[in-house]
Amino acid sequence: MRYGFLGPETTFTHQALLQALAEMTDDGATATEPVLQPFTSVAAAAAALVAGEIDAVMAPIENSVEGGVSGTLDTLAATKRITIVAEQVVPVTFVLAARPGTALADVTAVASHPHAQAQVQGWIRASLPGAAIEPASSTAAAAQELAAADPSADPGAATRAAICSPLAAQHFGLDVLATAIEDNPGAQTRFVLVTRNHRIPPRTGADKTTLVVHLPHNRAGALLEMLDVFSIHGVNLSRIESRPIGDALGRYSFSLDVEGHLEDRRVAGSLRALHRICPVVLYLGSYPRADGVRTDVAETNVDGSYDAARAWVDGLSELITPQDDPGI
Amino acid sequence: MRYGFLGPETTFTHQALLQALAEMTDDGATATEPVLQPFTSVAAAAAALVAGEIDAVMAPIENSVEGGVSGTLDTLAATKRITIVAEQVVPVTFVLAARPGTALADVTAVASHPHAQAQVQGWIRASLPGAAIEPASSTAAAAQELAAADPSADPGAATRAAICSPLAAQHFGLDVLATAIEDNPGAQTRFVLVTRNHRIPPRTGADKTTLVVHLPHNRAGALLEMLDVFSIHGVNLSRIESRPIGDALGRYSFSLDVEGHLEDRRVAGSLRALHRICPVVLYLGSYPRADGVRTDVAETNVDGSYDAARAWVDGLSELITPQDDPGI
Amino acid sequence: MRYGFLGPETTFTHQALLQALAEMTDDGATATEPVLQPFTSVAAAAAALVAGEIDAVMAPIENSVEGGVSGTLDTLAATKRITIVAEQVVPVTFVLAARPGTALADVTAVASHPHAQAQVQGWIRASLPGAAIEPASSTAAAAQELAAADPSADPGAATRAAICSPLAAQHFGLDVLATAIEDNPGAQTRFVLVTRNHRIPPRTGADKTTLVVHLPHNRAGALLEMLDVFSIHGVNLSRIESRPIGDALGRYSFSLDVEGHLEDRRVAGSLRALHRICPVVLYLGSYPRADGVRTDVAETNVDGSYDAARAWVDGLSELITPQDDPGI
Amino acid sequence: MRYGFLGPETTFTHQALLQALAEMTDDGATATEPVLQPFTSVAAAAAALVAGEIDAVMAPIENSVEGGVSGTLDTLAATKRITIVAEQVVPVTFVLAARPGTALADVTAVASHPHAQAQVQGWIRASLPGAAIEPASSTAAAAQELAAADPSADPGAATRAAICSPLAAQHFGLDVLATAIEDNPGAQTRFVLVTRNHRIPPRTGADKTTLVVHLPHNRAGALLEMLDVFSIHGVNLSRIESRPIGDALGRYSFSLDVEGHLEDRRVAGSLRALHRICPVVLYLGSYPRADGVRTDVAETNVDGSYDAARAWVDGLSELITPQDDPGI
Repeated sequence: MRYGFLGPETTFTHQALLQALAEMTDDGATATEPVLQPFTSVAAAAAALVAGEIDAVMAPIENSVEGGVSGTLDTLAATKRITIVAEQVVPVTFVLAARPGTALADVTAVASHPHAQAQVQGWIRASLPGAAIEPASSTAAAAQELAAADPSADPGAATRAAICSPLAAQHFGLDVLATAIEDNPGAQTRFVLVTRNHRIPPRTGADKTTLVVHLPHNRAGALLEMLDVFSIHGVNLSRIESRPIGDALGRYSFSLDVEGHLEDRRVAGSLRALHRICPVVLYLGSYPRADGVRTDVAETNVDGSYDAARAWVDGLSELITPQDDPGI
Repeated sequence: MRYGFLGPETTFTHQALLQALAEMTDDGATATEPVLQPFTSVAAAAAALVAGEIDAVMAPIENSVEGGVSGTLDTLAATKRITIVAEQVVPVTFVLAARPGTALADVTAVASHPHAQAQVQGWIRASLPGAAIEPASSTAAAAQELAAADPSADPGAATRAAICSPLAAQHFGLDVLATAIEDNPGAQTRFVLVTRNHRIPPRTGADKTTLVVHLPHNRAGALLEMLDVFSIHGVNLSRIESRPIGDALGRYSFSLDVEGHLEDRRVAGSLRALHRICPVVLYLGSYPRADGVRTDVAETNVDGSYDAARAWVDGLSELITPQDDPGI
Repeated sequence: MRYGFLGPETTFTHQALLQALAEMTDDGATATEPVLQPFTSVAAAAAALVAGEIDAVMAPIENSVEGGVSGTLDTLAATKRITIVAEQVVPVTFVLAARPGTALADVTAVASHPHAQAQVQGWIRASLPGAAIEPASSTAAAAQELAAADPSADPGAATRAAICSPLAAQHFGLDVLATAIEDNPGAQTRFVLVTRNHRIPPRTGADKTTLVVHLPHNRAGALLEMLDVFSIHGVNLSRIESRPIGDALGRYSFSLDVEGHLEDRRVAGSLRALHRICPVVLYLGSYPRADGVRTDVAETNVDGSYDAARAWVDGLSELITPQDDPGI
Repeated sequence: MRYGFLGPETTFTHQALLQALAEMTDDGATATEPVLQPFTSVAAAAAALVAGEIDAVMAPIENSVEGGVSGTLDTLAATKRITIVAEQVVPVTFVLAARPGTALADVTAVASHPHAQAQVQGWIRASLPGAAIEPASSTAAAAQELAAADPSADPGAATRAAICSPLAAQHFGLDVLATAIEDNPGAQTRFVLVTRNHRIPPRTGADKTTLVVHLPHNRAGALLEMLDVFSIHGVNLSRIESRPIGDALGRYSFSLDVEGHLEDRRVAGSLRALHRICPVVLYLGSYPRADGVRTDVAETNVDGSYDAARAWVDGLSELITPQDDPGI
């Protein structure tokens, strides 16, 4: 199996992919050594997936601070015959890493990407108030350059540290001087594993289904009607995001995660209703929830209730007289 | 065919049955002469129907002034294996009838049932201000007694008139001196023809379906949810009536007529949803509307929309990997 | 105070009125002896109320077996400037009563109204299998006639019994031989006390409000919208009944009891919304619930939530620049 | 008046601000020459606004291709005591600009920001197939550098063109060789003008109101309830966007534009209801719509309907007996 991911190496997306592969190995699902390949964009990875160059793509879909990841959402909506088959949640956490032998007290300079520095500036002020801040093109690059430094040519390397992901520190052989140095702990990013072959994993009872829906017209009533469909079927939404359709201001599509699997009658029933009332409904996959929390389903919405209702109406329908029957 | 009806003869129910039989004859549907039998209550007629003594029953279900006819609604809800197969609407109108030879100017006394007299008192005051009012046990009895009078023994018969239905005047051979003498014109009663054999007439495109529904619990939310089901499927209600379930104050069932036929996907879908959320759903039949008005159905609710939605979801469902499949 | 009620004396309505008066006496509310006057119809009593001949009317509004009492509902809807100020619930129960000295074993004949006999026929078959059944014009008349019988002229009086209300037995001085002889125990009737002067009792926290609402047009959507108003305000319905408006088949008004009092912001807010969307809204009164059960109100619907919301919007509105202000 | 905008100069935001000022001049509203100041971020401009250094800020809020502008939405939600008082819509269109004297046939190189180049690559391929593509740090920089070039030192300046906004070409004194060269015409960006002083412009009948709402809990029902509030009041949404609250995956706030003004009873009523049911409701302003389209309001939602409903309930409420009144 060949896996693409949003690179460069040691990004959180890379970490999400390694997490997923570790779980598969635990399940005994991977016989041969997987090949991992970074891409510069989700769109590029998806194109390689469709072209058959790789077999799956890991991509970020939702961040607890920034919200939906537009590039992934738009690529998923625009690419045909791909399916989300798994999700991974990765904590967004940073470490202070240095070359082996460097102690925290030695550090006089800190290198990282400005975005990461912004998220740890409180810790830096408190713990390394005198350190110089040096920019790098990415957190991965900061770690890689520090690891690759030649101390004889670059004496500052011994007193320099990098702010990077735990994976980057490990990957490039750096020592971790401090962990969880982000100012707002608890941030998470959710990733999805996407495949080409349109095989939907069987339901586990703790599943999610991802959809993209265009509303029939630009008014509150249509969104209300869409949500009403899920409500009638007892299907909860765990994510809803609006995305512009692109043709005019005020025209939106909605990207949704709902609790349940296509095999659940209540989800299939919701999809059928959406198909009737919405001009576009894209089914992007059903897959096990990362948190493993089983969905609590009311008695009126279990498969048995749907099956009993169908059997009842089918029984009645057998009594309908054919059009050419003389009748009573 | 043997037909029961709520008697006595010449009631509006009798007239509704004759109307229905005339329509069937026009359709060439009745080969042999039907037998008509009056019953003293709808319950008694329904019992005879279930026992196989008669083949169909005509019963009043809804009056534009008095509302739902409780006896019929309760009997329909309580009797198993009977089906409404047709409806008839009859105008509630009265005539002034007298023995042949009597002119309006001759009339000095008017006989009728007090209920009917109440509905024509304005006309009597204006047109026969000096007439004596004589009670009768029914409008039919007033007409019959007048027709059967022996003028030699009852000289008043020549100057007496009866307030009765047009059918009664005709049936008992009386002359009609004035028609449509009711003070509030436009009143109507709706009747249903009920059969035993659970054969549902094929849809015509201008159909009604009659249901009885118990709500899951005694609160506004349940009724709202029930109505929401019909709204989602684009199914209009043409009649809704509450009836006490009988076990406690505040516990209601609902008797409903909806526009459409069990063959309509939108009606079948509504029934399935009701079956899931309501403890009791009784299907009492689908039948052509008396007014022949075809139901206007939105594009999202035509059969084709339901079929396309089902085909789409079924196609997706084929991609679900079996539980024992090794997967990716 | 002069009180009218649906007579004759000793009816369940009479008993409801006595119950209400007893409660008022307990509350010390009635200084002078009340005058009680039976009427032959609720409409007649309401006319006397409007004319100032009496001060209040007790009338049945809902029966747990038969449903809404049409005569009362229609009279309440049609009469202006009257208000429901209290409700009473009375169990529908029958006794077997006889002249003092008659034992159950002596009884060879039973007199009552056919309607009451139908409700006790199981008990009669089991306990008095050989008794003759004698019709009476009402249960009150059966009791009264038995009490007034002259044993010397009517020797059967000593072995005759009457089926009547407990109140009738007591009122006419009969002995009660058996109580609660109805076949379906638990039936109840609800009564309302109606006054002329449009004074609404203060709220108690355990209140009901009675309304009549006409829907804007004959479709499911309008009823759904009406119920949605109550749902948004967290107001539960304890009774909903459809009544024909009378001008055509399929045109209905709704008679409603909701939990709460006009003084409750959530009820006042619901009424304002109904006034906007419905062509007719009749307010028939707010009054303490007979069962004294306090309404459980969600935090979002307590008066304080409404007051805080209003204060917030009023504060914002003060910032609106007047039309003739030069602006920024 | 001092106006901040998202810079650098000649951005579309700059153009939106110039548009707004031109409209104010037309209205005779600006007596003194305004001062315009670019900022590197909306957050920086908002901070200057709150600090009193400037009087208003123009910021992009919504793009027809990219969707909501997160930086603006988050800044508006996080900054207290600021109000949107106007909106502007600007078409996202590009021109090919060159130094005076350069003809289209002369052009051998094209400079611009990569993002803009991506949007015009179809036109470049068709019209300038042999041109070299040169990167610039922004479209404004491309135009500025071309205008500032010294032909003696940089002979290529005479055959080079810049892809930039119409405003940039004009601002830097370049000739426009081709207009509307974007591949997807019709893209627009919406901008809002924000002030500090919490003065709300009076309603015009063609207004918008912008809100931020947090839902009470993470489930479909809460969003449905929020939309239901607007539906009950006949208030349409013209924009709805979800934004992460930031504390956990799946927790969202919603940024909304609704049609109408705080002065409209239907909008004020919606805000009151939201205040009751949502933990956070931020009011960001009511202001005239850029397109001037008046809102079509149903009879049930005009101010008069709200006023009549309030007067009716207030009249009823006057009849409520005070708690210490002896009553009937």
